[in-house]
Amino acid sequence: MAAEFQTDAKLAADSVFIRALPLCDVRLMREARWFWLLLVPRAAGAEELFDLSEALGAQLTREINGAARALKQAAEPCDKINIGALGNIVRQLHIHLIARHKGDDAWPGPVWGHGAWQELQNRHLTARLDALAPLLAAEFGA
Amino acid sequence: MAAEFQTDAKLAADSVFIRALPLCDVRLMREARWFWLLLVPRAAGAEELFDLSEALGAQLTREINGAARALKQAAEPCDKINIGALGNIVRQLHIHLIARHKGDDAWPGPVWGHGAWQELQNRHLTARLDALAPLLAAEFGA
Repeated sequence: MAAEFQTDAKLAADSVFIRALPLCDVRLMREARWFWLLLVPRAAGAEELFDLSEALGAQLTREINGAARALKQAAEPCDKINIGALGNIVRQLHIHLIARHKGDDAWPGPVWGHGAWQELQNRHLTARLDALAPLLAAEFGA
Repeated sequence: MAAEFQTDAKLAADSVFIRALPLCDVRLMREARWFWLLLVPRAAGAEELFDLSEALGAQLTREINGAARALKQAAEPCDKINIGALGNIVRQLHIHLIARHKGDDAWPGPVWGHGAWQELQNRHLTARLDALAPLLAAEFGA
């Protein structure tokens, strides 16, 4: 499975690799307005959540929950984590985790497709990665 | 847990109860534009997915996957199932499962907050329930 897996080109362009978990790559979206992660299961050909076996589905749930907890702490102030698996544009299975706070650019609506993309500057990207790394390590090991 | 659980008033008003699974109530949104289900875990106080224990998280994943398979078949033509746990407006944990097809009213964007609510007429509501019932029974038992 992993041998055939290749990250979708649009996902790769819109986000930066952070680390690999047992099932998923964790990636940070290069979008300034929201602290926004992607989990991309390394499961070649998967498009729907139910394309994963029950065991992989349970593993995905563990990875979503650990990454969401880490994101919520890293992104303070954070009022809600939004989780979505849409895939209308990029078919490769990927799960969005987005830290939301009251009054953010799209609140209380969804972020997908909202307004014009705002590229995350490098120093903010670095700050987000630095905030996340120890929290992800606490969830999943170094 | 179940003793204290009460369906959020807005969820109850926007949707109709279909059946109970071991963890979640399955509900149909009264929205004409999309064939749209809600899964509402009967877990009083839960707002984030990670508020559920690991065992309940695995059960939720099974219920999401079974309901999504049933929805995909019931809603043909269906190009993609969108799954989301947002909770910016209604805090009670609930998971959206929406059957999407190319060219639907919001395609390829998300449905949440898109345009004005269109109430599902009773005969269409009945048709959706009739299409779903045997497929949910095949997934989860009668």
